[in-house]
Amino acid sequence: MIIVMKPGATETELKEVSTVLENAGLGVHISKGSERTIIGVIGDKRLLRDIPLELMQGVEKLVPIMESYKLAGRTFKPEPSVIDVCGVRIGGAEIVMIAGPCAVENHDQIMGAAKAVKKSGAKILRGGAFKPRTSPYSFQGLEEEGLKMLKEASEATGLLTVTEVISEHSVEVAAEYVDIFQIGARNSQNFHLLREVGRSHKPVILKRGASTTIEEWLNAAEYIMSEGNYSVILCERGIRTFETATRNTLDLSAVPVIKSKSHLPVIVDPSHAAGRAQYVLPLSRAAVAAGADGLIIEVHPCPKCALSDAAQQLDPETYDSLCKDIEKIAEIVGRKFKYGE
Amino acid sequence: MIIVMKPGATETELKEVSTVLENAGLGVHISKGSERTIIGVIGDKRLLRDIPLELMQGVEKLVPIMESYKLAGRTFKPEPSVIDVCGVRIGGAEIVMIAGPCAVENHDQIMGAAKAVKKSGAKILRGGAFKPRTSPYSFQGLEEEGLKMLKEASEATGLLTVTEVISEHSVEVAAEYVDIFQIGARNSQNFHLLREVGRSHKPVILKRGASTTIEEWLNAAEYIMSEGNYSVILCERGIRTFETATRNTLDLSAVPVIKSKSHLPVIVDPSHAAGRAQYVLPLSRAAVAAGADGLIIEVHPCPKCALSDAAQQLDPETYDSLCKDIEKIAEIVGRKFKYGE
Amino acid sequence: MIIVMKPGATETELKEVSTVLENAGLGVHISKGSERTIIGVIGDKRLLRDIPLELMQGVEKLVPIMESYKLAGRTFKPEPSVIDVCGVRIGGAEIVMIAGPCAVENHDQIMGAAKAVKKSGAKILRGGAFKPRTSPYSFQGLEEEGLKMLKEASEATGLLTVTEVISEHSVEVAAEYVDIFQIGARNSQNFHLLREVGRSHKPVILKRGASTTIEEWLNAAEYIMSEGNYSVILCERGIRTFETATRNTLDLSAVPVIKSKSHLPVIVDPSHAAGRAQYVLPLSRAAVAAGADGLIIEVHPCPKCALSDAAQQLDPETYDSLCKDIEKIAEIVGRKFKYGE
Amino acid sequence: MIIVMKPGATETELKEVSTVLENAGLGVHISKGSERTIIGVIGDKRLLRDIPLELMQGVEKLVPIMESYKLAGRTFKPEPSVIDVCGVRIGGAEIVMIAGPCAVENHDQIMGAAKAVKKSGAKILRGGAFKPRTSPYSFQGLEEEGLKMLKEASEATGLLTVTEVISEHSVEVAAEYVDIFQIGARNSQNFHLLREVGRSHKPVILKRGASTTIEEWLNAAEYIMSEGNYSVILCERGIRTFETATRNTLDLSAVPVIKSKSHLPVIVDPSHAAGRAQYVLPLSRAAVAAGADGLIIEVHPCPKCALSDAAQQLDPETYDSLCKDIEKIAEIVGRKFKYGE
Repeated sequence: MIIVMKPGATETELKEVSTVLENAGLGVHISKGSERTIIGVIGDKRLLRDIPLELMQGVEKLVPIMESYKLAGRTFKPEPSVIDVCGVRIGGAEIVMIAGPCAVENHDQIMGAAKAVKKSGAKILRGGAFKPRTSPYSFQGLEEEGLKMLKEASEATGLLTVTEVISEHSVEVAAEYVDIFQIGARNSQNFHLLREVGRSHKPVILKRGASTTIEEWLNAAEYIMSEGNYSVILCERGIRTFETATRNTLDLSAVPVIKSKSHLPVIVDPSHAAGRAQYVLPLSRAAVAAGADGLIIEVHPCPKCALSDAAQQLDPETYDSLCKDIEKIAEIVGRKFKYGE
Repeated sequence: MIIVMKPGATETELKEVSTVLENAGLGVHISKGSERTIIGVIGDKRLLRDIPLELMQGVEKLVPIMESYKLAGRTFKPEPSVIDVCGVRIGGAEIVMIAGPCAVENHDQIMGAAKAVKKSGAKILRGGAFKPRTSPYSFQGLEEEGLKMLKEASEATGLLTVTEVISEHSVEVAAEYVDIFQIGARNSQNFHLLREVGRSHKPVILKRGASTTIEEWLNAAEYIMSEGNYSVILCERGIRTFETATRNTLDLSAVPVIKSKSHLPVIVDPSHAAGRAQYVLPLSRAAVAAGADGLIIEVHPCPKCALSDAAQQLDPETYDSLCKDIEKIAEIVGRKFKYGE
Repeated sequence: MIIVMKPGATETELKEVSTVLENAGLGVHISKGSERTIIGVIGDKRLLRDIPLELMQGVEKLVPIMESYKLAGRTFKPEPSVIDVCGVRIGGAEIVMIAGPCAVENHDQIMGAAKAVKKSGAKILRGGAFKPRTSPYSFQGLEEEGLKMLKEASEATGLLTVTEVISEHSVEVAAEYVDIFQIGARNSQNFHLLREVGRSHKPVILKRGASTTIEEWLNAAEYIMSEGNYSVILCERGIRTFETATRNTLDLSAVPVIKSKSHLPVIVDPSHAAGRAQYVLPLSRAAVAAGADGLIIEVHPCPKCALSDAAQQLDPETYDSLCKDIEKIAEIVGRKFKYGE
Repeated sequence: MIIVMKPGATETELKEVSTVLENAGLGVHISKGSERTIIGVIGDKRLLRDIPLELMQGVEKLVPIMESYKLAGRTFKPEPSVIDVCGVRIGGAEIVMIAGPCAVENHDQIMGAAKAVKKSGAKILRGGAFKPRTSPYSFQGLEEEGLKMLKEASEATGLLTVTEVISEHSVEVAAEYVDIFQIGARNSQNFHLLREVGRSHKPVILKRGASTTIEEWLNAAEYIMSEGNYSVILCERGIRTFETATRNTLDLSAVPVIKSKSHLPVIVDPSHAAGRAQYVLPLSRAAVAAGADGLIIEVHPCPKCALSDAAQQLDPETYDSLCKDIEKIAEIVGRKFKYGE
């Protein structure tokens, strides 16, 4: 960290700041410029805890040099992490496809979706049972009943499963039925819930919040990892901007940025950002071309019959054609994806 | 709701959409324009549940006409709501001042803060015990220990109290110690938690999320109200924008907008948005001038010693001078605030 | 357009609004719902000119149904436009590569860049002569001197050329040297300049402004087209959001959105959005995978020696390797691009 | 400026960076931390011109310490600037009110507006003659004809005048008729135009662009000042965010931020941000309470008859009542404003 002193800061003020730093066990390196004096702070910034240096006399501002996260960063672990979920490896050479309906609605629907997505090349089945909806009057999910159906579909097809958890209670319930937890965008800074899944032993797909910077997102991963669970898969799903032609603005630049700052795998959810099936295809292709480790896509055996987010769910035929494209794009970017069962 | 049909939509397609609407118990009103046919949907849109009209053949888009919230809206209750908390009336003629430290740190600190803010004119004491922090390595609050100290300060001064809750567990614990719950910006769309405080009988200060539109914010209030708890106080605290000179951009336009769309009281938290004590004064004055029903301000007996958000907490003298200004501005906008004990 | 009346609007108010519409030559279609009465306006909204209907008694709000642009829209021209510039066809089957340095710096630099990008497969050479820079103390371009060098490089290689224009004067000067004008992001709503290039007979690359919605961007195109110049090529180059890890957030969703709303070709500039060469490659591949008609990329024979935006310019080797990838991705999305001279 | 070296940067790399800095005439101060080495650059950063240090081997990133503007900053001129326009002092003790219609429409309208706003306390009359409109089909202003009417209204009332300029030509024409130029939000980074008004001798109201940071805004002022024209009045008018309930989000925090970073006066335009007359009053009061040096407000003798932006223009009665409030708020914040002629 760098401390920038005010233009007219006195020697006494400089001394006082230095003393505080040294008392905290940190090294101090003073550099006098033509217009400002700056102090380089040497050592682990966390030793400062929450000492409010910015309030000390003569201090103009603090400039962080290092990232605020540790376990999630490339400095901590330079080589990429591969998360192995019962043999499915996320973050390795293979592009992993996660697909299924927005919400589990009934037995036939989830079974139909599972068979369809497996046929084209998915390894993991998604399906919401606890749905966070903007309005309290919208369909909120089948809860445990839905998880049972999801598990049946998993047993029938051999697909792994992922579902969103939204509270302590749902973590407990879902733990018995699914292989991977998902933290949704609206809970991406629900630190209580992050700690909760951090204490579990299941891998976690951590969606980026709609207004979460990449730095904050990696700090959210840090919450999970600091509890001992290192199996975190980041998921870009669009950020909130002024543009309203799409529901959110899919930030594909985040993929190479994450790759340079973190060792964690990063996948992309084009369905929620696009909000319309016709945009999901080009954005899926683009995500893999940008270097994503996988995709999570909404597929419904009959989109027109869906109880939530109908407009953005693909039908099985469209999903199948997408998988064919992904196989070819994966190869161009030095990855692989096997179309078909 | 209006359904806009595509340029070449056929009579059959028009008929099919009409039938779906009529079967749902809704009225249909067709209007053929020079370039588009549109369908006016008459009746309660919620009868449609989640029928995906936008996927029907010939449909271009849906245009909502009414708000998606009900209980929180002016149409439901035209006159302003006044929330009475043990005699302190929020949303009435009086400007209500809520003040206190970011976090409860120890007995002397919260007692000192309570006495100071009471002296200048606060009615409610704030103090965090469960702190959601971006980094897992920052100070996270004293939890129940902190709430005990808050209660002692309340008993010693007669101030009412408010604290942030972040989980089911914290709601249960806090319920025994404080008068008002606060939902923080990061949990403003944690629907599980909203329902939880909705089932309680305590008033709730609902902060706006950093990327929550006013419509979504009112829907969050709807979650609380739909559980039977109508004592919701909205709190503007800054939204996330591209500007980084302040931590968030305080959206004071939200105050008159809320006043025109909702009957709920709205207060303003200038401390978190500004991120710096020197900006808190002008923004507090501006908030009351814009029509806010109250302010929630961070005051610490010794900002330099604070364990969190030190830079934005006012010292008692500055707070005192602010209260004098507020007394005068309140009068100009036809409200009242009594400076002093 | 739909006019939504207030809850208690009277028959007289409804009548008055209808009369105004009818007097303007528009049709009126009234639809009485359970909570609101709405008026469908039939005919060309432009007949209303600027009649402030929203100020009439009883009117709650206006809801536009049609887009505000005309010539730029799919309704006006359903099939995609192909812009032919001396035989190079933009918007057709072929992906068109535009490459070259941020700014023309000297004869050797632009000549080196031209030869390098031609070798790998560019058809058009870019090079700035009038540079809009945030600070007045940064390098501002060589102006006419630079354009002469650009022309020499064009004559030596057979590449077409494009340069940014920033004023009437620069349009006049550039007209003698280049084949295509570029309107930069900061001038994307400089309507005076848009009209100016609209009156010229040269094709125009119209960059999206950093905070311009897709609707406003198409209206900017409309300014150019309404002067008679239909050769407009849209260029997505990143929008301003809260995220600062990249200079701007490249909005690749804009590509399929433009394809559905407009007939104009759309290319992507990944260099300015990314701000760093290492992100340019994945984003370029992603742009073509998302359906872009071409790319405009900054390539400098020696990025380290560049006088502006050094960090984001590719060296010739990296550009060459990118072109190989683009050839393969083009094929997957049903387009073609020929790597090499 | 600080240069942060990569974790494994070698001594040779460190040396090479140092040499480049020293050759540019800058001092070098090296500080080795536990995880990173940083280099403090001592001297005027502009000596570096555009040397791309971020591309040198071993360099991770550059961290600016000083602002990029000079003349507009508090360091250059610590005391506030007062711009005197024919006796009207902007930035001094007095709050200056600028009012008038969005556009000059005809003789009676501008004369009516001028008399009305003068009566309640305006010192400067606004009125657009060159209107930048999103759609080319909207009313674009009366140009020179309008300026003549504006001047007549000025002569009849003694009010000073301000009008927006949008091109070299309009600067030349307007120079003969008005006292102050205005640069609109869409041209706030039209550097060519900024230089043009910088070369004139008239004061300039510089609106903030809808997506311009405060730092960029001050750099835009720097463009005008670097040409020798120091009479710049900044004007906050709302920024573009995700919120659509108001046209733009008025950033009142910008007022105290500007006051701490710059010596230039700052006024507020609540009309364009709010987009609705009913929000203009509370936001005007708030702006003065936040420390603004003046207001620029749209007032039309008959808002219903206006040819542009009708919804946001105040009628004379509402404006009159606002002026009474401003007189009282000015006093509370230690300023003065005289209601009435």
